[in-house]
Amino acid sequence: MAQPAAVPVGAAVTAVRQASLREHNLALVLRQIAAAGRPPSRADLATATGLTRATVSALVDDLITGRLLTEVAPTPRSGAGRPAVGLTLAGHGPAGLGLEINVDYLAAVLVDLAGTVRHRTVRRVDLRLVPPAEALALVGELITEAGAEADRQDLALAGTALAVPGLVTATGLVRLAPNLGWRDVDVPALLGGHPVLGGRGLGVDNEANLAALGELHAGPPDSANFIYISGEVGIGAGIVLHGTLFRGARGWSGELGHVPVHPEGRPCRCGGRGCLEQYAGQEAILAAARLTDPPTVDPASPDEGTGPAPRRPAVPAPVPAPGVAIGRLVEAATREDPVAERALVEAATALGVAVAGVINLLDVDTVVLGGVYAPLARWLAPTVEAEIRRRVLTAAWSPVTVRAALLGGDAAALGAAGSVVRTVLEQPARWLGRAGR
Amino acid sequence: MAQPAAVPVGAAVTAVRQASLREHNLALVLRQIAAAGRPPSRADLATATGLTRATVSALVDDLITGRLLTEVAPTPRSGAGRPAVGLTLAGHGPAGLGLEINVDYLAAVLVDLAGTVRHRTVRRVDLRLVPPAEALALVGELITEAGAEADRQDLALAGTALAVPGLVTATGLVRLAPNLGWRDVDVPALLGGHPVLGGRGLGVDNEANLAALGELHAGPPDSANFIYISGEVGIGAGIVLHGTLFRGARGWSGELGHVPVHPEGRPCRCGGRGCLEQYAGQEAILAAARLTDPPTVDPASPDEGTGPAPRRPAVPAPVPAPGVAIGRLVEAATREDPVAERALVEAATALGVAVAGVINLLDVDTVVLGGVYAPLARWLAPTVEAEIRRRVLTAAWSPVTVRAALLGGDAAALGAAGSVVRTVLEQPARWLGRAGR
Repeated sequence: MAQPAAVPVGAAVTAVRQASLREHNLALVLRQIAAAGRPPSRADLATATGLTRATVSALVDDLITGRLLTEVAPTPRSGAGRPAVGLTLAGHGPAGLGLEINVDYLAAVLVDLAGTVRHRTVRRVDLRLVPPAEALALVGELITEAGAEADRQDLALAGTALAVPGLVTATGLVRLAPNLGWRDVDVPALLGGHPVLGGRGLGVDNEANLAALGELHAGPPDSANFIYISGEVGIGAGIVLHGTLFRGARGWSGELGHVPVHPEGRPCRCGGRGCLEQYAGQEAILAAARLTDPPTVDPASPDEGTGPAPRRPAVPAPVPAPGVAIGRLVEAATREDPVAERALVEAATALGVAVAGVINLLDVDTVVLGGVYAPLARWLAPTVEAEIRRRVLTAAWSPVTVRAALLGGDAAALGAAGSVVRTVLEQPARWLGRAGR
Repeated sequence: MAQPAAVPVGAAVTAVRQASLREHNLALVLRQIAAAGRPPSRADLATATGLTRATVSALVDDLITGRLLTEVAPTPRSGAGRPAVGLTLAGHGPAGLGLEINVDYLAAVLVDLAGTVRHRTVRRVDLRLVPPAEALALVGELITEAGAEADRQDLALAGTALAVPGLVTATGLVRLAPNLGWRDVDVPALLGGHPVLGGRGLGVDNEANLAALGELHAGPPDSANFIYISGEVGIGAGIVLHGTLFRGARGWSGELGHVPVHPEGRPCRCGGRGCLEQYAGQEAILAAARLTDPPTVDPASPDEGTGPAPRRPAVPAPVPAPGVAIGRLVEAATREDPVAERALVEAATALGVAVAGVINLLDVDTVVLGGVYAPLARWLAPTVEAEIRRRVLTAAWSPVTVRAALLGGDAAALGAAGSVVRTVLEQPARWLGRAGR
């Protein structure tokens, strides 16, 4: 821990503070407006912040010019005086572009400063046999499309973030994305030069982390301790503790899919055995529900399975696309089809075992089921809850909530876009500087 | 997250700051001395802190009077002038009393401000059938003994902390200590009035957390991300991330012993099945090594065992005390006894499965084997490392170190005493105030 110096009470420090005072106060005013229930006036802001009315007015004018704020019609009020003009976050200024590349789909969303989704697209495509450069070229197409939409809607692209189902370094290098078959893919080098990005680069992060951030900011304020589980072909987790995403010592936390649930069980693509992914991943669920290729491992004895890893199809399999197949599974479970029900109980049991371990270790109070787990939560949650009650030492005193994610299948893209928007809201001075006024 | 107010640059704030300035600077001076390689002089301190020599001298005088600092003979130095008197943390002033109550032993240590252990006692006693009040009465005897030692050595008891192998609330209530058979034991109510404590009360914390803190402060500064595993009859973990103990959302993190490793395996005292404790706890290891009662579960097929939980002896069993038995196990393993070796590999395999899950989730870089695992680390570590290599997704890029704890069997008591000492070092003004000068 850094050692603080003696508390200095002098002119030099005050000078330093004055220099960053405007930056700080711009963010303060913006935060007040973002948090307000109804559009506050300049006078309201002066009261709330303790700044003078003149200071507030100058800051607000800068924020309006920079297209971060907009004035709205005055709300009638009781008492004397002219009704004051209200202020809200601008819907026509900077917007964040969030992208996701996953095993069987791509997603892009454009979110404005007020949090409104202005453009949204999901493209189903099996990327397991597609080389990284080609896959990223498809992402590039989504960027082009989103850029055109931004222009059409008079939005300025403030930044772009891409969600990837794998281990991402601080520089955006994808070290490993096992289900995509990627190793050491330098995403910014391959995609950062896209003309729509305008030289502003591209943030890259783990998809479960970004989805967890999306959930954190979409959810009620008391959801500050949770594990967001992204159930896809792979299973990732974003861990939020005390309202902050926990990234681990080296940034590679949350690999829930590779937590062993049957130590000598089914082999996994990662080289291990009995990983959760092999029992509760999308492919395992669909196989057990007989909604895809028959699996090489007998789904009736999931605990004992020691056969080879599920085959990787040489050509895209002639089965329903996973998005469609999950829809069919929901349908089958709704009509109480026993095969579908058994597949879901098996997956939820494995998931519950892993989650119970997580709660014993981390003591989170909420489990959020995301990805394909979200539409299946109605069937998965009871079994996951039962495993928690059975296996978590503190379950008697500390109830754990298991619920579906608030965001849908494009949660990671929404989280990615939201992370860009929050950066603008937290550092408006940087945006104003860049907007070149 | 709290919203910061506008940066205030005014007289009121300066006044508030002045009031806490002395407190801050006392701690600053003390910290400088604690961190210094050789005893610094008052002049050295003035240079290092930026405070005036007069201020430093006044602070140092207060700290000497309060028995937090002591002067040492001047070290000869080159150059002109009188050699300056050096300053070190006092060995004769406040001391922290650390206690541990565990399933089969009690421990007490007295640590002075300089970190020297001034008194240390471990008492072997099987507490499984002893009611909490009686067990705490035994702890009270250790407190009386330590109080007498403190008097004899001219130390002032600054505070006391007790380590308990269970779930402890912020007020010191032990919600559950499954292996002690405790539920809702109000430790401060039962023990806080001990005359030696002088009305200063008693801190209570989880033993693995306190041992992890002890390890953190005993270890090299780069050991800032680790999981400390306390292997006893129960298995607990203290998780240190970025140099800070991670307590979980509600303070009950680290229940590694109840992470499932064989979901439908051996039943556990907690009510779950296949908990790590049933495969790698002290009783399981000793049973497999045939150094205690024959277990009810066949140790040759640990993965399949579904029998009842290990019997709880109606009277203390006529077998070697665990401390002795672990010594025998070390002996047997040293002479390469195959039964002992197999028992250790089995335990280490289960431990490695659970630890691989932890690393996949939390991305820590070091695993510290504490408790009875420390003397067994030579045999356990290779298998734990092999499971990590096999099962941790990031193992190829992020090597994980598995090592024995630096502290011995009384790590939790040392950690408890250290936590008291650090409180004095961090808040010397409170100690000076209490010392009543």
